[in-house]
Order: sequence, then C-alpha cells, then structure tokens
Amino acid sequence: MASSSIFNPPSSTTALLLRTRRPIHVGPTSLRFSTIHSAPPSSRLVSIAASATEASVAKVIDGKLVAKQIRDEIAAEVSRMREAVGVIPGLAVILVGDRKDSATYVRNKKKACESVGINSLEVNLPADSTEEEVLNYISGYNDDPSVHGILVQLPLPSHMDEQNVLNAVGIEKDVDGFHPLNIGRLAMRGREPLFVPCTPKGCIELLHRYGISIKGKRAVVIGRSNIVGMPAALLLQREDATVSVVHSRTSNPEEITRQADIIIAAVGQPNMVRGSWIKPGAVIIDVGINPVDDPSSSRGYRLVGDVCYEEAIKVASAITPVPGGVGPMTIAMLLQNTLSSAKRINSFQ
Amino acid sequence: MASSSIFNPPSSTTALLLRTRRPIHVGPTSLRFSTIHSAPPSSRLVSIAASATEASVAKVIDGKLVAKQIRDEIAAEVSRMREAVGVIPGLAVILVGDRKDSATYVRNKKKACESVGINSLEVNLPADSTEEEVLNYISGYNDDPSVHGILVQLPLPSHMDEQNVLNAVGIEKDVDGFHPLNIGRLAMRGREPLFVPCTPKGCIELLHRYGISIKGKRAVVIGRSNIVGMPAALLLQREDATVSVVHSRTSNPEEITRQADIIIAAVGQPNMVRGSWIKPGAVIIDVGINPVDDPSSSRGYRLVGDVCYEEAIKVASAITPVPGGVGPMTIAMLLQNTLSSAKRINSFQ
Repeated sequence: MASSSIFNPPSSTTALLLRTRRPIHVGPTSLRFSTIHSAPPSSRLVSIAASATEASVAKVIDGKLVAKQIRDEIAAEVSRMREAVGVIPGLAVILVGDRKDSATYVRNKKKACESVGINSLEVNLPADSTEEEVLNYISGYNDDPSVHGILVQLPLPSHMDEQNVLNAVGIEKDVDGFHPLNIGRLAMRGREPLFVPCTPKGCIELLHRYGISIKGKRAVVIGRSNIVGMPAALLLQREDATVSVVHSRTSNPEEITRQADIIIAAVGQPNMVRGSWIKPGAVIIDVGINPVDDPSSSRGYRLVGDVCYEEAIKVASAITPVPGGVGPMTIAMLLQNTLSSAKRINSFQ
Repeated sequence: MASSSIFNPPSSTTALLLRTRRPIHVGPTSLRFSTIHSAPPSSRLVSIAASATEASVAKVIDGKLVAKQIRDEIAAEVSRMREAVGVIPGLAVILVGDRKDSATYVRNKKKACESVGINSLEVNLPADSTEEEVLNYISGYNDDPSVHGILVQLPLPSHMDEQNVLNAVGIEKDVDGFHPLNIGRLAMRGREPLFVPCTPKGCIELLHRYGISIKGKRAVVIGRSNIVGMPAALLLQREDATVSVVHSRTSNPEEITRQADIIIAAVGQPNMVRGSWIKPGAVIIDVGINPVDDPSSSRGYRLVGDVCYEEAIKVASAITPVPGGVGPMTIAMLLQNTLSSAKRINSFQ
C-alpha cells in the first residue's frame, strides 16, 4: 500500500502490543477487517497495560481500483446494449464560462465517457451567455433521443439562477440526481429515485464493494450539503444505518463521530477529523478534496481530505485516501447513471 | 395541569430533594424551563446524597391550547382575506370506503374547517370504486379555483395504488405535503417546500410556541415514516439541530435518545420510550397515539403515546401528553396549510 510510508513503523517494544483494541470499542465493522491486518496468531497478545499503543493500520479503500472495475463493467454493458439494440448511451455536458477547474472536470468526464464507449456531447458557452441560451440548450438535449444524461457543470456564472437552470433538466435525464423530485424519492421509504447523486452514491458503492455492512450500524455524516452530505445521510438510512448528521452548528462533533461505525466526511475542511474523533475500528469515507500549501510540491500545494489521514489510519479499520478514494468514484457513478438512463429509456435490461 | 394526577405526589421526606438534577446532564433546554416548575427559593436545596430522588416534574406542552390559539389566528386571517379580496379558502377531502376511523378523521377535519371559516368540500366514494374514479375527482379539484387544498384520506382500499393517487394531487394544492417534490425541497438547503407535512410541522410549531430553542441542539427522532419521522428529522435539521434518526434496525436506541435535548417519538409502540431513555431536562414530543386495553374505561381501551408518560414526566423538562399534545396540532396545521395555499394562489399577503 502506497500509504504505509506515511506513518512510522512500530518499534520492536510496542510490536507485541500491536492490534490490541479495547473490546468495548470494537464493533462488527472492525471485526470484519481483523483478518486483513491482524498479526499472526503468535503475536496476538492482549495487553494489560493501560497505555497500550493502538497502532493497528487501517485497510486503504482503493477508490481508483474500484472505479476502474466499475468502468470495465460499464464498458461491457455499453457494448452489450449497442450490439443488442443498437443504442449508444449519450451524455451531454453544458459548460458556461472559462473557469479552469470546471474545464478540467468537463474534460475528465469526456475522457471517462470515451473510455467506456459512452457518447459525449459538449457545449461550451461564453461566461456572458444569457440564462435563456443555457435553457435553450437544455431544452434541446431534453428532446434529443441520443442524449440520456444532461449535466450542467457548476458553478454557473453569478448572473444565472442555478435552481432555474437545474430544474429545467428533464427528470428522466437528470444523471446528477439533483432534482428535488429525485431527492424527495430518495428520502421516502417505498419510493425509488431515478438517479442517485454521484458522489454519495460512490461512497456507498465503496462500502458495498469492500463488504462493509451498513445495516444496523451507527453512521455519522459530517456536512449537510445538497450534493453530498444530505443525500449520503438519506442513502445510509435507506440501508438501515442509524444516521446522525453533524454540521457547522454542532457544538461537539467529535463526541458524535466517536460513536460512529461509519463516518462520511464532506465538509471541505482540511484535516478537520482528527484521530481522536474516531472510534477504533470505524470505517472512514473522506469526501473532502482540499488544496493546502506545500512548497515541496512542484505545484506549490497538495490535496488533503477532511480527515487527518496520518492519524485516522492508526485508529480506523478502513479509510479512503485523498486523492484516489471517493474522487474517482464520482465520475464512475456518473457513467453508471448515464448507462442506467439509456437502459431505462430504451427498456433494455 | 390535568396530568398531575397521573403520578404520585412526592412524600414530605423527598420534597426537600425536589428539582435536583445532576449538573452534567442539565442542558440549556432544561434551564429554559427552570423558572416554570422550580420550587420557591426556600425549598431549592441541592442534595449531596448520591441517592437523590430526581422528582422534578416536566412542563406539560398543551397542544390543545396551542391548536386553539392557532385556529383563532387562522380564523382572523380567513376573514381578513375574505373581506379584502373576497376569497374563501377551500379544502376538498376525498374519502374512499367506510372505515369508521377514517370517517371520524374526515368529520373532525370538516368541523375544524367550519370553525375557522374555511369551506370544506367532501366526497365519499364506495370502497369498490375504481382508482380512475378517485383520479377523476382529484383532477376536478385540481382545476377547481375554489379548492386550495386537496386531501386524500388514507389508507385507500388495497386495490388502489396509493402512490399513483397521491401523485395526482397538484403540487400547488398538496396541503398534506406528501408529494416527493415537496419532500425533496424540504430536504434541500436553499429550497422551500410549498407545504410541510402537518404532523411534523405541528411538532416544530409546539417547540416554537413554547420558546424551546432548536438551533445547535441534539435532537433524536424515533421512527422514519414518510409522514412523520422522516420529515420531522428534515425539519429539525433545517432549524440547525444535530439530528439522529433511530428506527427498528437500531440496536441500542436508548443510548442515543439519552443524548438528546429534544426527542420526537413517532413509532406507534405504546410506552416504548422509558424514563431511563431520557436525559434529564430533555423536551419530549410524543406523536404516538396507541390504544391499549383498559377495562376500567367505558370504551374498554385508552390512548397512550410512544413515551411512558408517568416515567418521562419525572425526567424531562417538557412533554406533550397523549391525547392533547401533537394530535390537535395536526388538524391546525392542515388548516394553516390550506390558508397559506389560498393566500399563495391569490397572491394575498
């Protein structure tokens, strides 16, 4: 694991105390992973010293690898559908203005589409376009049978009403899953959203692919944004977790996160979640991607998550790295939503 | 207080120990109420005995009284609107079949409408009506400018698709607030639902009217139904509470409820929440209305909440009784939603 170089190897004195956890804190989640990083039986000594070093190392949840697997699966499905019914899924992306970061995101999405055989259509409008021009493009894509997903790259220029623009995307092609009707269905038991927002969907998919059970677990979501925190909480609740949402108005977030078997952090605060916030054996999904100054990097900065990785990896049983954790999953889920949309529109199973 | 006869008065020996709470558990919420039920200064002795009887008595949140106030306010607004623009709010209720309980609910709603000057239209269809017939009525009311709210009394006969029927109610007249578009907007920051479901809205209104602050508080909702628990959790979160939702898959609900400053119980389990589940000083909103056998009652049963009232009243700082707590608020909120709808449709402030 690339990440293992980040923390110091235990000294020979503490080695015998490795893998020791206070039983009261050990939930089923950590047990699940005990086979992965537990020491050989001979060294599994239970310490009676109160100061036992808790130096177990979390499994790294490899989002890049999982995203690659999912993209391979999507590519296979895309070609199966093309051969069976002659339909190629199409994703239309609308980019307004010339923000560099947005242009990069759009380029990445386009490349990802190409890599799995999904058609990508792109329109790049100048920053001073009118809202009406954007709405016209959306309307055209809504009616275009070769388009199965429509994505408006955010943020829009400030003179446009984001709500208005997003609401114009037909619910059948809302692959971002941001339409309130989709969110409402996500919240309601017995209803099914047409699309689930990509980033929180990617978080849950990582848990599934790593065999981490959610049902009956205590889950804490940090952050309540419309695009990550809130839908992540709804998704976890749909999977029968007991969910708490911690946010900027929570006075004692660490007391609550310390009770969690699963933490999804999505606040955009570099290294906010410290090791002491985490129950030993918890699973950590870190959605944050925060640039912090780093003169030693050629770019002058590096990306860190909302979770202090170096500390968390010593306490958690599994953790996503930043980058290479949730990030690659978001695009994979966008491709999956586009594929599902094309299948649904064409009644292809 | 009518409820004070339910529990035994303290003996003279324990009276001196009254109102004593362990400070570590006393949150701002309980402080807020300390002026309401604290004993006169002379008897405010702080016990040093470890076995101090915690026999403080919660304030009873009088839903009947608050609902009456709200109905008076609505009646005044209805007549102001009638005089200013000649519009009378109208509520259409569709009842299918001859369930006695449903008929009672509909009759109560009709009476409540009359009491505030709202027009009530009612259609009572036989149990073997087709779904299409119900949909036709809904469609008619959707188009009828004298109708500002449409309510389909649930449950519907089993041969009908409840989702289909509810979805047919125009979003502008969905005074029940059950449309997924309304729920989605309720979940999303920066969006406003047209209507908030009546029962959870009534819970929050009780907190507001009793001056109980929600922002930054730990709130636990027990139950995650589409009509109460889930929207109650979303509402509490909109008011900046830190919300946890406990449900049938939660293995240790009492550990979580014991952390709550505010508990909303909505599971339909008589007396499920015991005194030991409650943090001293917490505020309890009990949505449950459960009939339990009672041979001493002329009806053979009595109604109890999801919370064991006799125990809770000794621990909480405020609590809603059953009946007379949340129940009367539900209809008051339905009238309020109907009035708001009529105001919105007629652009009347």
